[in-house]
Amino acid sequence: MSARDEVLRRVRGALGPPRRTPVPVPRGYLTRLTGPEAASRADVVALFTERVAALGVAVRHVGGDELATAVAAVLWGWEAKRIVVPADLPYGWLAELDGVRALADSAVLDVPALAGVDGVVTGCAVAVARTGTVVLDGGRAQGRRALTLVPDRHLCVVHADQIVGAVPEAVRRLDPAVPQTWLSGPPVAPSEDVPPHGPRTLEMLVVED
Amino acid sequence: MSARDEVLRRVRGALGPPRRTPVPVPRGYLTRLTGPEAASRADVVALFTERVAALGVAVRHVGGDELATAVAAVLWGWEAKRIVVPADLPYGWLAELDGVRALADSAVLDVPALAGVDGVVTGCAVAVARTGTVVLDGGRAQGRRALTLVPDRHLCVVHADQIVGAVPEAVRRLDPAVPQTWLSGPPVAPSEDVPPHGPRTLEMLVVED
Repeated sequence: MSARDEVLRRVRGALGPPRRTPVPVPRGYLTRLTGPEAASRADVVALFTERVAALGVAVRHVGGDELATAVAAVLWGWEAKRIVVPADLPYGWLAELDGVRALADSAVLDVPALAGVDGVVTGCAVAVARTGTVVLDGGRAQGRRALTLVPDRHLCVVHADQIVGAVPEAVRRLDPAVPQTWLSGPPVAPSEDVPPHGPRTLEMLVVED
Repeated sequence: MSARDEVLRRVRGALGPPRRTPVPVPRGYLTRLTGPEAASRADVVALFTERVAALGVAVRHVGGDELATAVAAVLWGWEAKRIVVPADLPYGWLAELDGVRALADSAVLDVPALAGVDGVVTGCAVAVARTGTVVLDGGRAQGRRALTLVPDRHLCVVHADQIVGAVPEAVRRLDPAVPQTWLSGPPVAPSEDVPPHGPRTLEMLVVED
């Protein structure tokens, strides 16, 4: 018997036989954002922007017809020469790139290849105003996990209708069976010597359609 | 009373009062492709390719990882310099363009602007093997109708899983409330002096995933 088995045996002995009684889970928490912060859609979007900015994310609002120019401007700001994007990213998002080469992600790109690009552009599944969070679930325009973990800069495009008020609203929109990545600001390095787990720079464009 | 009203009045008079009896519609037609032509998925895809080629469409089969190169090769074959695509075309389809500028379609592009490009690349909603038809319904990667009517060359990307055997199978996959464009080969000019209603050149890439 391993030490682990021995510990578990003692824990089980102390707990006694399983009782199988249903444990009531209190559900009295707020399931939606209410109050003046969420009086209108515009308030929810404004709150998201405020919280995201407070987390150290450069964020800009753009109209749908300005998105391609705004994406290009962010990449020029990074002085990016080569970026990577999910293969299903809408072409229109990248239509104004000039002097920036975008690689469409494929199985050919391994971790060193991803580490060698200047950044990544993705969409998201849902965003949470109250916490300034974006959630990626590998769905459309989001790509696989390595894509938003390995490159050093991440530009995330958030459509205004993807922003909900509070976390429970986001959970309701997501498929619990699909792995998710929740990003609340850029990752924090555990110490000066250890790089953060994820892109050092996170920027966002909020598209008002 | 106009001549039209007079004609309708006489027709109604001859028909007598409306009877409102339900008219039985015979539904004994084949609703799916059967027989050796459709023994397997590969047969259905092969039949589509054969019928499409017989209609004068240049068609090629490509693997998913070859699509970007194949799209670029078709455009180079056209000696295209500027094309237009629906803004939501997956970026990966165009990732290998070199020397071809792709405009993302937007409300800014009017008919003269569309007439001035060298071609258009779209996907489709569904394709019919028996008739060599592709159907566009304005959904993802398809764009508005003018996009595939005005430019002189149209490259249509068909995923193998979008190909059904017979027309009734296609109808079942489509939303009857959404306007559709059914293309069976390139349009035929009504006479030598009158240009055809639509692109003179239709090419297809069948993607086997």
